[in-house]
Amino acid sequence: MSSSGDGVFRIGILGRGNVGGALAVLVEEHSERVQRITGMRPEVSGVLSRGSGVFEEILERSDLIVELIGGIEPARTYVLAAMRAGRHVVTANKQLLSQYGEELFAAAGEAGVQLRFEGAVAGVVPVVRVLQESLAGARIDRVHGIVNGTTNFILSEMARLGITYEDALAQAQRLGYAEADPSDDVDGRDAAAKMAILARLAFGAPVVLDQVRYDGIRQITQQDMEYARELGLGLKLIGTAERIGDGLSVRVHPAFLSPGHPLASINGPFNAVTVESPEITEITMSGPGAGGPQTATAVLGDVVSAMIPPASPPEEMVVMPIITDVMSGFYLHLEVADEPGVLASVARVLAEHAVSVKSVVQKGMSDQARLVMVTHPVLESLFFAAMDEIGELSVMRKPPRAIRVIEEEF
Amino acid sequence: MSSSGDGVFRIGILGRGNVGGALAVLVEEHSERVQRITGMRPEVSGVLSRGSGVFEEILERSDLIVELIGGIEPARTYVLAAMRAGRHVVTANKQLLSQYGEELFAAAGEAGVQLRFEGAVAGVVPVVRVLQESLAGARIDRVHGIVNGTTNFILSEMARLGITYEDALAQAQRLGYAEADPSDDVDGRDAAAKMAILARLAFGAPVVLDQVRYDGIRQITQQDMEYARELGLGLKLIGTAERIGDGLSVRVHPAFLSPGHPLASINGPFNAVTVESPEITEITMSGPGAGGPQTATAVLGDVVSAMIPPASPPEEMVVMPIITDVMSGFYLHLEVADEPGVLASVARVLAEHAVSVKSVVQKGMSDQARLVMVTHPVLESLFFAAMDEIGELSVMRKPPRAIRVIEEEF
Repeated sequence: MSSSGDGVFRIGILGRGNVGGALAVLVEEHSERVQRITGMRPEVSGVLSRGSGVFEEILERSDLIVELIGGIEPARTYVLAAMRAGRHVVTANKQLLSQYGEELFAAAGEAGVQLRFEGAVAGVVPVVRVLQESLAGARIDRVHGIVNGTTNFILSEMARLGITYEDALAQAQRLGYAEADPSDDVDGRDAAAKMAILARLAFGAPVVLDQVRYDGIRQITQQDMEYARELGLGLKLIGTAERIGDGLSVRVHPAFLSPGHPLASINGPFNAVTVESPEITEITMSGPGAGGPQTATAVLGDVVSAMIPPASPPEEMVVMPIITDVMSGFYLHLEVADEPGVLASVARVLAEHAVSVKSVVQKGMSDQARLVMVTHPVLESLFFAAMDEIGELSVMRKPPRAIRVIEEEF
Repeated sequence: MSSSGDGVFRIGILGRGNVGGALAVLVEEHSERVQRITGMRPEVSGVLSRGSGVFEEILERSDLIVELIGGIEPARTYVLAAMRAGRHVVTANKQLLSQYGEELFAAAGEAGVQLRFEGAVAGVVPVVRVLQESLAGARIDRVHGIVNGTTNFILSEMARLGITYEDALAQAQRLGYAEADPSDDVDGRDAAAKMAILARLAFGAPVVLDQVRYDGIRQITQQDMEYARELGLGLKLIGTAERIGDGLSVRVHPAFLSPGHPLASINGPFNAVTVESPEITEITMSGPGAGGPQTATAVLGDVVSAMIPPASPPEEMVVMPIITDVMSGFYLHLEVADEPGVLASVARVLAEHAVSVKSVVQKGMSDQARLVMVTHPVLESLFFAAMDEIGELSVMRKPPRAIRVIEEEF
């Protein structure tokens, strides 16, 4: 599609950050290759930044709009206006997609244009394309993802060097992997937005950020890491989107992974996604998390796809109830008085809530003891009810702490 | 595209093996989902097997032909005839693509039909699609792959259980991962065909099986595995396709991988491919190797893509010289007489051929000694010349053995 018909495909870029700059360079460098593939020469027709450019003028002279502003407004208004004006849109904006996805997909469908967003999820790891196309013939049961490179770097450094969360975060900030205010990353909200987008792709069901439960990594301690090292487990911030009966659960939380799990060996500022389906057992994709050049490459891949018309008709949505209570195994960490009967009282509370214990390690430390248990999978509501009750036992020296455990199933 | 215009898309299947059977079931099971995505209902219009069906009749009533016969003839004749009759073709036939790729791609281009072949390379691991589409904006420097699940299973079992090659092969045969005559797999020829296809995709250069050098795993010993375990290295059958200056090298051989390498942790009957590019550093994809259901899923994904017209115009080919002499690090295993001066003579020969030694381990064993060296990367021709000369030293007790070493660069 070229509005001008002169063999040039004009790309308007909104936003002049790292990604926008890298994209302009890539378009220039790869224009011959893209022309070989698509038959048209790509050209940047304008860049809108805070200080320069007028959106309407750039829109007028573009065949496709790349939105790299981020956040909700004015990105949402621009993207909707571009699609209504018949322009394809490529965006890397996870906030926008995870909160206003339905509005955007509906607008794309009505206007008959493409809305592509590989760069919004896992940088250059092509999970969007694979879910949309390669796995069109597979029923997907579950997606697990490490979709935030910042937190994966922090956890990897804590594991590798035995340092605290605070020191690892400072290290990530020094290296440019974490922002001055890291809340969105370390509290799990960034990963939750990406999992909402992935859930939509995997299950064809509208999922918004508000429906994703999430937990971050601020509370992870060196002791948790020691335990992980002793048992050969990887401790990761894991996003999960899974089919449960006719419903769907989407959530983000730290989890211990068994050594055979394909995400257990993903270290550093990397992203990785595992897709499980009865037809394929599982596939895993991994690569560097979003940085300027990586995201720009993903965006250019989307631009090239959009240059090859027409779009596939959008798949109809199905409605699936969101399930909030799911089965998980748990690691339960208790600091207790070192006196007779403690293990018995804890075990009694667990049993009353149908929580079955898989392994126990107890370590004495002068007048108190550390009791670490791993449970079999159990409904989370039952586990947390048990944990609340355990927290009220008089022998507890600190509030109990829990981290989920994910076993490799294949 | 539907030749009949009644909203039904007719799929003719050539070959009634595992994959063909699994595909027929998948088409039936997923027909509603495929209709949601493409707007057309897929239907199997005929199955050609040795005993039943007539090719021309099936062709006549099909919109797309899936070729699952394998081998060169009659598959080649059927595929060419189908494309010339204006039918899209999906094939999982690596022999055909790696030997007659140019003829097939030219025929597809002339007829304006799609030729898709995800199932021919890494089963359901979507490496073809990712190379063709996601990475259209990236200059690819190197592809490393574990593209044969049989050999990866055998090597994994040797490492895990400390058993011999013969015992691991027998185990693979019992479990159905290896055929009664495993030559194509264990000699590296199957992997070589797949690497020829991947090289073509990654570099846009015509590469045929005959241009791929390959080595198998029959000669791998328990001692090699012990060495790998001691140093934490993974020993894998690795396919490599890489850009070297203006040329291209494509090869398959066993190699030690450093522990950080993304392919080092791929165990069992799995496939995995790593793509390196300056824009993205690297991405890795992994999943189960080709089995009936996996390959059928990949084939159905290709069918769905072909149902969404039109094809992207085929990218023009570039010609790149094939380079046969490349740089590699080596593990060199020598059984020598335990007498003074042995290390000195070996070291002298290596130095004369500009082979620089990175580490040496020498173990005495009564009257003879085992000398294991790891070299820095060196032109392979120089290394092999040195190894030949070392083999002629009077102190050698057995012919010297070498295995390549691949270090993680990122």
